[in-house]
Amino acid sequence: MNNLKTIRLGLLGCGTVGTGVLKILADNAKDIEGRLGARLEVTRILVTKLDRERDAAVPADLLTLDPADVLQNDEVDVVAEVMGGYEPARTHVLAALAAGKHVVTANKALLARHGLEIFEAATAAQRDVIFEASVGGGMPIIRTLREGLAADHVETLHAIINGTSNYILSAMSDEGASYQEALAKAQALGFAEADPTLDVGGGDAAQKLSILISLAFGCHVPFAEIRTVGIDTVEDVDIRYAREFGYAMKPLAVARTHDEGIEARVHPALVPTNGSLAVVHGAFNAVRVQSRALGPLLLQGQGAGMLPTASAVVSDAVELGRNLLRGTSGRLPHLAFHDGQASTSGMQSPGNARHPWYLRVPVRDELGVLGQITQGLAVAGISVSRILQDRPSPDGPVQVVLMTHSASFAAVAQFKSALRDESWCLGAVQTIPIEEGV
Amino acid sequence: MNNLKTIRLGLLGCGTVGTGVLKILADNAKDIEGRLGARLEVTRILVTKLDRERDAAVPADLLTLDPADVLQNDEVDVVAEVMGGYEPARTHVLAALAAGKHVVTANKALLARHGLEIFEAATAAQRDVIFEASVGGGMPIIRTLREGLAADHVETLHAIINGTSNYILSAMSDEGASYQEALAKAQALGFAEADPTLDVGGGDAAQKLSILISLAFGCHVPFAEIRTVGIDTVEDVDIRYAREFGYAMKPLAVARTHDEGIEARVHPALVPTNGSLAVVHGAFNAVRVQSRALGPLLLQGQGAGMLPTASAVVSDAVELGRNLLRGTSGRLPHLAFHDGQASTSGMQSPGNARHPWYLRVPVRDELGVLGQITQGLAVAGISVSRILQDRPSPDGPVQVVLMTHSASFAAVAQFKSALRDESWCLGAVQTIPIEEGV
Repeated sequence: MNNLKTIRLGLLGCGTVGTGVLKILADNAKDIEGRLGARLEVTRILVTKLDRERDAAVPADLLTLDPADVLQNDEVDVVAEVMGGYEPARTHVLAALAAGKHVVTANKALLARHGLEIFEAATAAQRDVIFEASVGGGMPIIRTLREGLAADHVETLHAIINGTSNYILSAMSDEGASYQEALAKAQALGFAEADPTLDVGGGDAAQKLSILISLAFGCHVPFAEIRTVGIDTVEDVDIRYAREFGYAMKPLAVARTHDEGIEARVHPALVPTNGSLAVVHGAFNAVRVQSRALGPLLLQGQGAGMLPTASAVVSDAVELGRNLLRGTSGRLPHLAFHDGQASTSGMQSPGNARHPWYLRVPVRDELGVLGQITQGLAVAGISVSRILQDRPSPDGPVQVVLMTHSASFAAVAQFKSALRDESWCLGAVQTIPIEEGV
Repeated sequence: MNNLKTIRLGLLGCGTVGTGVLKILADNAKDIEGRLGARLEVTRILVTKLDRERDAAVPADLLTLDPADVLQNDEVDVVAEVMGGYEPARTHVLAALAAGKHVVTANKALLARHGLEIFEAATAAQRDVIFEASVGGGMPIIRTLREGLAADHVETLHAIINGTSNYILSAMSDEGASYQEALAKAQALGFAEADPTLDVGGGDAAQKLSILISLAFGCHVPFAEIRTVGIDTVEDVDIRYAREFGYAMKPLAVARTHDEGIEARVHPALVPTNGSLAVVHGAFNAVRVQSRALGPLLLQGQGAGMLPTASAVVSDAVELGRNLLRGTSGRLPHLAFHDGQASTSGMQSPGNARHPWYLRVPVRDELGVLGQITQGLAVAGISVSRILQDRPSPDGPVQVVLMTHSASFAAVAQFKSALRDESWCLGAVQTIPIEEGV
């Protein structure tokens, strides 16, 4: 233990994740020293308010209100950005790189929006930016895509990467709660924000999927172009019917390579109850990667929370520390592929995405309606595998539930729009993708 | 793509895994170049026979019978040992390191027996030896323990790391096959060797667990000292009774840290059917790591087979290539921890391992026997949670099946040995550990 060097960490932000970083450095100091061969210490912490009440793990004498105390500090080797949001996170990260610091960030929103600019600045400064905590919390999905699968050709990604959405759908499924009841419970337990839009609307998952796509396929897909449907569109009857057909409802982010480009979508989906994604419960995350040589690989773990997220931040700091101790940097391209070497580029036209569907049509109890529905499906070129008719409440509509064979998004949209003008159709058609074999 | 460098790979062996390496390098060349920023090419292949029939992916002009053609070759940067066995693999790996080559190996037996010698030689030669394929095939469990969990304190490992055993127990469970039928089927399908002892007896899993323990806890546990029970001790009735109690039978390797040392054992075990290990079917592998900050993390994938195993070998070659392109080596200690910095050392006395048990006692149909069994358990200090009595065949023994609360291995051994002399006890007591919460 003599002559042990110290890698010095500057924190930008000291909220939940930052506090978790300090706790882990205290709790696991011996393991970290053993693995790194050096001490890992926080030397400065940027905060917006000095006199807030903080956890005992936060040393008051390290706090500062001045960004330069972290970013320009000669006693900081690695800067960890754990403040979240776009600004001032972007400005601070760029300043840290310009000052010669290596950077760890847990900020998926920042990377999804400003990633290319940040990685360019890092490359120009010959510094590394790593970001395991940005997707899946402490689950090492980013390391797996950048290093574990470095020899392979990734074909598909199926990811449960929004813990709030998974918690809500699990509660609806396990406890028979309505969407509103499950959301209220998630909020009471701290799994959901007061304004849950980014989580339940799918925006958070789309940002994370954009990052995973870069790493898996080597191409940039702006998150705003990913077809995104929130779990707030799911009704409790859908979960019940899905179960009758042998499926569970999960919040999925899906990506797949095609000759015409990347297929990317975020939405609630039906997955087989006997598969590996159906058993990912509560706030857990999971990513299933299918690649050419390895076949299916599943990672499952806690995708959020103070300590799981902070554990990824500290692992990243250890990785940068290992580089600093060896005097190396730039071992890995930030987005896994060197410039211009991606095997696929561009996006598939969203209408062309094909998979089986769960369709639910609320109809008036009238002879001949089922015939008209199946006729409408035939016109749209959609082939049906199973049909169920049910009237869940005596005075409510009859629910016609259909499972289809593989059909394009465009065909289903055509069917849905054709039914809009039918007098016997008593509401919008529910359309939920089915993912088989996952 | 101009000025693209080439990392040159020498293969020791060209059996299943070696052929897989050549296939992957051909099939995924574009992905690998994109990720590495250089070509990865095999320049020489050591074989024991030149004129064997080989896959079209094997270029005949690269084959050699002379080890020096690979080991001493200036046109080889990285040596991949894919021959298996102890010798001449050990001699060749040491010679490669002495000649300044970095080494990839897929050989868990070699590492479990000669790992310390090989890693010492590598450190002295300032060369790296990496070995992702040695445990869990292409599933990146070794990277995860060395890097993903670098900030954390690992508490427990639960691993399904012998695909043959998992295949056989799955077939017994899903198809109601007997052990012998399931083994014969596994052999017919190529999942089991003609002599399956190393797989079904638990020796292979013990070797792999010894490697995982080094990486997770930073201490060396010789695999011969790991308590090992094979799946050939499981009878089909055990699987059926386990299911009645809500458990599945899985071949587990378990390790856990205690103040008195590492608990390590390999045996068939009962896991809850609604947990994440129960759904790991057929020849799939899985490792569940519980650590202090991250909590539970599960990896699941194909732990064997030509391409999955070869994908890990090639990923390792990419990693060494990345180091070579940056002129760095020794970034990571081979066994994850720097010398003398492990947080735990030594082994727990095997008799002290405590967990719930499944016990099955075949008895004569006689009044008072159940009382004597429960009395025997009380004497051994074992508390029962559930009891079932059954006579599966009219002229066979009555089976008394008991689920216990947590009890030590020593207590259960005492109970088992006390029953040996009872005239009403018609055979050996079946004793299978139960692992809850996994």
